[in-house]
Amino acid sequence: MTGRECESEAGDVPPKVWGRVVGIDPGLNVTGYAVVDPGPRGAIVVEAGVIRPGSSDRALGQRLDHLYRNVLELLTAYPPGALALEKVHSHAKFPRTAILMGHARGVIVLAAASKGIPVFGYAAARVKKTLTGSGRAPKDQMQRAIQTELGLAEPPEPHDVADACALALCHYQIGRTLRGLKGL
Amino acid sequence: MTGRECESEAGDVPPKVWGRVVGIDPGLNVTGYAVVDPGPRGAIVVEAGVIRPGSSDRALGQRLDHLYRNVLELLTAYPPGALALEKVHSHAKFPRTAILMGHARGVIVLAAASKGIPVFGYAAARVKKTLTGSGRAPKDQMQRAIQTELGLAEPPEPHDVADACALALCHYQIGRTLRGLKGL
Repeated sequence: MTGRECESEAGDVPPKVWGRVVGIDPGLNVTGYAVVDPGPRGAIVVEAGVIRPGSSDRALGQRLDHLYRNVLELLTAYPPGALALEKVHSHAKFPRTAILMGHARGVIVLAAASKGIPVFGYAAARVKKTLTGSGRAPKDQMQRAIQTELGLAEPPEPHDVADACALALCHYQIGRTLRGLKGL
Repeated sequence: MTGRECESEAGDVPPKVWGRVVGIDPGLNVTGYAVVDPGPRGAIVVEAGVIRPGSSDRALGQRLDHLYRNVLELLTAYPPGALALEKVHSHAKFPRTAILMGHARGVIVLAAASKGIPVFGYAAARVKKTLTGSGRAPKDQMQRAIQTELGLAEPPEPHDVADACALALCHYQIGRTLRGLKGL
């Protein structure tokens, strides 16, 4: 990752980053988010949903502005110790779409920075491995893992919310493991 | 372009957008910018330079925040009628670098939106064709065209500034042509 993100330095960060975590799956059409708190018996999702920056006939700037304001509101309403995103990956199948996703991701990282919230980037395979034990887990296995971990009656929908939940859970579980290793 | 940018609708925009234009060449390491005003005998560059969001050991959020604030300052100090950027293109050779450029481009478009400044996206070939007559003009030909158009003693340096000048000039020249067509 150009622009340091903290994953590999997870042992060196203040304990607060292992408290409440917001997971976000950025997109210009739909951005999914999930707010996950540590609970007495595991992770609890306290809020989740989607932000819709508007259809593609809306100016790009207005869509980014909409997204930025809504993420700021989310981070203000549910102040987290950390923001979890998917790492930028190299093998984009659709470069143009990926660059536009980068615009959305950029304003989300900016919103976090303006609030002093550290951003953690996790590779998709890392998220899968952390939640299921396999870096190649299929979608339905991921859905079940998210549902079980969060104690939900149904798998989270739509997939943007599920992906945001998975990112937040990945961060939560890595924190739990690190605290365990340190005997905290 | 997902997220409407205005190039193809240039005839329908208010005259103000053909006044002062800021061209920006986004990058997380170096962002080039140029402020171009219409003058009595052609375009005049009134300010140009680079913003350096910081090296890659700085957190991505801090770099984006640095870039965002500096672009806001630029747009406040030199309020333009339009911002000219290169269009997002599909054939990125380095997808990861392109996605990170997208982060930078995103916060720049956000800064413009927060000021109500319309963003115009121009394809690289369109910029070359507008400035030299050839969409495949080599770099030195572009350098000379920029130097001549802006009446500079030397070609602009570094290339980030030259690219920003070229984008601003492209917008300026398209506006001049349109005004000519309308007999204005």
